Amino acid sequence: MTRTTPAGTPLGDAFHVYDTTLRDGAQREGISYSVADKLKVARLLDGLGVGFIEGGWPGALPTDTEFFARAAAGELDLKHAALVAFGSTRRANTKAHEDPQVRALLDSQAPVVTLVAKSDRRHIELALRTDVDEAAAMVADTVAFLAGEGRRVFLDAEHFFDGYAFDPDTALRVLDAAATAGADVVVLCDTNGGQLPLGIADTVGEVVARTGFRVGIHCQDDTSCAVANSIAAVQAGATHVQCTANGYGERAGNADLFPVIGNLVTKLGKDVLPTGALAELTRVSHAVAEIANIAPDSHQAYVGSSAFAHKAGLHASAIKVDPELYNHIDPGVVGNDMRVLVTEMAGRASLELKGHEFGLDLAARPEALGSALRRVKEMEARGWSFEAADASLELLLRAELDERAQAPFSLESYRVILDHSMDGTVVSEATVKVHVAGQRVIATAEGTGPVHALDAALRRALAPHLPWLDEVELTDYKVRIINRGAAHGTDAVTRVLVESSDHEHEWTTVGVHGNIVEASWLALCDALAHKAMRVTATV
Amino acid sequence: MTRTTPAGTPLGDAFHVYDTTLRDGAQREGISYSVADKLKVARLLDGLGVGFIEGGWPGALPTDTEFFARAAAGELDLKHAALVAFGSTRRANTKAHEDPQVRALLDSQAPVVTLVAKSDRRHIELALRTDVDEAAAMVADTVAFLAGEGRRVFLDAEHFFDGYAFDPDTALRVLDAAATAGADVVVLCDTNGGQLPLGIADTVGEVVARTGFRVGIHCQDDTSCAVANSIAAVQAGATHVQCTANGYGERAGNADLFPVIGNLVTKLGKDVLPTGALAELTRVSHAVAEIANIAPDSHQAYVGSSAFAHKAGLHASAIKVDPELYNHIDPGVVGNDMRVLVTEMAGRASLELKGHEFGLDLAARPEALGSALRRVKEMEARGWSFEAADASLELLLRAELDERAQAPFSLESYRVILDHSMDGTVVSEATVKVHVAGQRVIATAEGTGPVHALDAALRRALAPHLPWLDEVELTDYKVRIINRGAAHGTDAVTRVLVESSDHEHEWTTVGVHGNIVEASWLALCDALAHKAMRVTATV
Repeated sequence: MTRTTPAGTPLGDAFHVYDTTLRDGAQREGISYSVADKLKVARLLDGLGVGFIEGGWPGALPTDTEFFARAAAGELDLKHAALVAFGSTRRANTKAHEDPQVRALLDSQAPVVTLVAKSDRRHIELALRTDVDEAAAMVADTVAFLAGEGRRVFLDAEHFFDGYAFDPDTALRVLDAAATAGADVVVLCDTNGGQLPLGIADTVGEVVARTGFRVGIHCQDDTSCAVANSIAAVQAGATHVQCTANGYGERAGNADLFPVIGNLVTKLGKDVLPTGALAELTRVSHAVAEIANIAPDSHQAYVGSSAFAHKAGLHASAIKVDPELYNHIDPGVVGNDMRVLVTEMAGRASLELKGHEFGLDLAARPEALGSALRRVKEMEARGWSFEAADASLELLLRAELDERAQAPFSLESYRVILDHSMDGTVVSEATVKVHVAGQRVIATAEGTGPVHALDAALRRALAPHLPWLDEVELTDYKVRIINRGAAHGTDAVTRVLVESSDHEHEWTTVGVHGNIVEASWLALCDALAHKAMRVTATV
Repeated sequence: MTRTTPAGTPLGDAFHVYDTTLRDGAQREGISYSVADKLKVARLLDGLGVGFIEGGWPGALPTDTEFFARAAAGELDLKHAALVAFGSTRRANTKAHEDPQVRALLDSQAPVVTLVAKSDRRHIELALRTDVDEAAAMVADTVAFLAGEGRRVFLDAEHFFDGYAFDPDTALRVLDAAATAGADVVVLCDTNGGQLPLGIADTVGEVVARTGFRVGIHCQDDTSCAVANSIAAVQAGATHVQCTANGYGERAGNADLFPVIGNLVTKLGKDVLPTGALAELTRVSHAVAEIANIAPDSHQAYVGSSAFAHKAGLHASAIKVDPELYNHIDPGVVGNDMRVLVTEMAGRASLELKGHEFGLDLAARPEALGSALRRVKEMEARGWSFEAADASLELLLRAELDERAQAPFSLESYRVILDHSMDGTVVSEATVKVHVAGQRVIATAEGTGPVHALDAALRRALAPHLPWLDEVELTDYKVRIINRGAAHGTDAVTRVLVESSDHEHEWTTVGVHGNIVEASWLALCDALAHKAMRVTATV
């Protein structure tokens, strides 16, 4: 039997950080990823250095099928992680190699397949409507078939803890069927999330001792113990832990990848990430939240913006003397910051590092660095976020260094008119008055919505004067309403992220304003300014 | 020595549910309670049946001093809980009865006092700048003085776990000073929140065994384990557990009272609340969030609105057969509901269950169910999503059953004008033409953005004719751009979710359109239609 091994895991195979943000995490109410979103999330997780990325259920969901196809076509160049396809065992009383769902797992070309199987006899009888013999055969056949085709196979034993408590023989028999047929890891799943840590530790320890199998853990947060349960399982012998970024998942969610990693590294001393990656924890957490379009939880352990923020007067002075006495870890270790109301980006060091990415030597210009830091903080207090908008940040930093190129145009005014007429049609029309290449230009265009109309009018005005404009395409547009303080509903601040591409580069810009159209305008202007800057630099 | 006992604890004194929402929980960034707020929160917690309510630090904070004064004057008629004043031991090298801070604790007239003391030798030396002998004397003197005055005294041993690991003798000596002087409970505090459950269980078990004292637990959530740590401590022998409502607190927060209670009752079988009170858990959680002015966490274990929400098509049909197989508890036990999310994967079963939530018997109308399912699927294919918009789904289902109430108004047309003028100001103005109560009404209003202006103009037009309109408030507004197929950037479909409230109900509606303003308009119209439906139903 041949086996592919996880792509380049630098830490070897001894411990698996297994991420299922894109499959189980996508069950969270309100999340719906595009294929492009999934590719971005996968790249972020790979950059963090997780060992496995469960990308979805190919064959069951069209988005997932396309994700695996594009990954196989080379769009996902994973450095650390192995890509995993999730699926089910063959149906009862069929052959594994004839089951279209099983074939779709093979067709996905993912080197690893995780199969879900029922291990609670009640579920086997009530939901599968079959008996334990056939359930075990379904597992054995499917694992053997996929392993025989060169896939590495893991088994998710659904409802394992309830099943083991109810009928341990059945639960162990399902694990045994998988391991004997060639599954590398049997993952004990607390599917309904009802477990507590001491119980998890007992059961995991017992299963490891009784079977000798490599055991994994998958926890849900229904008792608010998913992170604790995962850690307790590792302490009891599990060497594979399944999590989702920010704990996204069905109901109360899954075990949150970031505190699980934080705890494994800083509390248990396990090197589960490549060197240096732990400091990316906060950034990756916030970037995934941005893509999922879910406001980050400011009180999230390790990575929340308040995770190391101290308000208590009782502590404030003592913290100055010795912060280590009051923080359980040095916040910098996970890329976070101790100060209150300082942002995701904050900190001279991270801004300097960021400048370095843009080829800017901010260390040599401490006054410009200080001024840029003040400006970033002041803007973030008003709802801006540069976390996912590098291009806007680069423009800001270059302006502080007086290196910002001449803006490609200047605005005099714009007007947008939206008409919902009696016959039900909705028309958006925008007029812009701009100065470009020494001329005043007025242009009007229609669009599907106000921002589209504005973009179209601006392009019409500028196109004759900016030869590169045609190359620039708007590839994504995200909107987030920021409720600050007493502001309610539509009376809040709007943050717009615009992603642009010229088929060579992709860049993201941000705009913030009480008016969504003006926020979009600001982000559009930055997008063009960034392209103009690069055009100027190469001329 | 006389002792007051906790006021009317129906469950006796064997186990303490101790709430510190109003003291430690108030350290959360963004929370600032008025005295009236504190009284309301205390009444809610008392209604739930907690044993102790720590009301604040009298003498240290004016709001807290007034809170205790008004409680003592009879404004807080507690049925179950004893009121607790929190404070510090006397300062080094002073007398307890002369310390103004200690006297303020007496003056508060609270029957119970919880004293905080350092139990980590490093903190004693670095922060208190004294030695262990004096630190122990500070504890002993202050406890003895307050106990002698008839108060029941608990000791919060700050940074206990780190202190015990660093120098167990000092840590135990502080506990001993308190217990010997008359403290009833010594509370082991994981002040910086760095502990994990198995370690907590070991230490608590060891301290109970070595001292024989009554031990309490106070956990912070910095490892995302506060609830788990609290439960592990109880399993190891702690009989007093300190929590805050919704886990509010400094940094990552405190142990969340609601999942802690949920776990104690439903997992450990401990009767820690009066009969019937557990079903109030969800209501009390949301009411406290309302007073704290913090949006409830929809994914909170036990009490979150998504805590029992199922999305996976995999499960939906099986849930119908036996919900107990998929939920760790019956949601009704904690006053929550099982919600089924309607998604891309929706089937007849989940739509039927959903209708049942609205009081609609779709099973009896199979043709209407089939037609509703086709309509939902067709709309979802165009970017609609009903999983977070129950009110819009209910309107759709009622329309299929011909049960939809007359719309409260009809639109003739609207126009929105956005002007970014030469001086940089941005103005949004909307005009609506509607038919309401047999009249044609035209109204114009300005707003901070296009949707706000449209909402304002619509309200201006309708207010004279719809007496209930003033009650309806827009509480949240979410925007998501849906990229479908080849559609790119601003040329995509926009999905808007609007949350509304009339201070009795909250409901969410959805609108989808290529134009963001039209999408918002559709969601706003559904929001008013849903309210009108309920008004009509109760007339």
